[in-house]
Amino acid sequence: MFAALQAYQSRQNAMNFCSQCGAPVHIRIPEGDNLPRYVCTACATIHYQNPKIVAGCIPEWQGRVLLCRRAIEPRYGLWTLPAGFMENGETTPAAAARETLEEANAVVKDLELYGVFNLPHINQVYMLFRGRLHEGQASAGAETLEVRLCEEAQVPWDELAFPVIRETLELYFEDRRRGVYPVRMGDIIRGADNRIEVRRY
Amino acid sequence: MFAALQAYQSRQNAMNFCSQCGAPVHIRIPEGDNLPRYVCTACATIHYQNPKIVAGCIPEWQGRVLLCRRAIEPRYGLWTLPAGFMENGETTPAAAARETLEEANAVVKDLELYGVFNLPHINQVYMLFRGRLHEGQASAGAETLEVRLCEEAQVPWDELAFPVIRETLELYFEDRRRGVYPVRMGDIIRGADNRIEVRRY
Repeated sequence: MFAALQAYQSRQNAMNFCSQCGAPVHIRIPEGDNLPRYVCTACATIHYQNPKIVAGCIPEWQGRVLLCRRAIEPRYGLWTLPAGFMENGETTPAAAARETLEEANAVVKDLELYGVFNLPHINQVYMLFRGRLHEGQASAGAETLEVRLCEEAQVPWDELAFPVIRETLELYFEDRRRGVYPVRMGDIIRGADNRIEVRRY
Repeated sequence: MFAALQAYQSRQNAMNFCSQCGAPVHIRIPEGDNLPRYVCTACATIHYQNPKIVAGCIPEWQGRVLLCRRAIEPRYGLWTLPAGFMENGETTPAAAARETLEEANAVVKDLELYGVFNLPHINQVYMLFRGRLHEGQASAGAETLEVRLCEEAQVPWDELAFPVIRETLELYFEDRRRGVYPVRMGDIIRGADNRIEVRRY
């Protein structure tokens, strides 16, 4: 039970107190439910926790894509596509466009859904859109060291920040050679030996 | 400011106390951020809140689709596709299959992403998959009054539970006539006059 509890907490944002009434919470399976939840010991509020969407963009300009070098942890100094947590009140393409503006001072237009990737070990779903980079203009935002427009051969393949970014770029350049962009879906999973495994659908 | 605060809270799960330390929270724009967040008055923890994914399925069997009549609020007694909140630790198709099993005692296979719909006024993103209903078998789960396999003309169009379900089924039958199923995307928005508006991409 202790291991299960630890595993449960490590997959969640650990919670100690009820955000409604301030009393301590404990972990229980509520009646009619089949999963452990944080439940308030005083007011019985059940605090559900759910995966988050990371919305991002592949900004395209004259056969190149815009990459950003991270100025923040994790993976400081490594390269990524502009992406970040979707906010309440947004649509997914609006979130992808906002992240691109914040991280690369870049305006993207005509966004089309391209990649959906499940990362169940960290409770994230990536939703990545292709978008036309307006006038090819971009520069480093507050969370970015530098930006670069890359052809396939110019992508710093050995300095990419996350497996989901490598997977997205590999699929993207494959599809670009064929000139078709089906919506791509996959799972990025951390195996028992802690190694990251990619499953294409 | 008060109206903005109310609008903010109504779009969020209202929070009174810090889930880390139990002290009261207030609403502030943290340094380096540009949106109001719940921030702890004692330990300064920032409590981000983000949209949730609703994963669901269009279970297909011999030209028909499986619908469920809701045994729970909201929209008790109205018809829907099996769908519900994605859980931590899941992939999106696994969540869609689980919801189908829970609500319709039905096993679905070969899931393919079909619809992605943003509902920014309630902070939800629907992700709906087509799936083959195993042996055509289904029955009412705990949250369902009855299940029904429907051809297009048999769908209870005037008794559907949610606009996103109507939109999904309309697009689905359109696509089925053509025999192609591109991933469909759209926004379901509540306009200024409180009316629901559908925007197809």
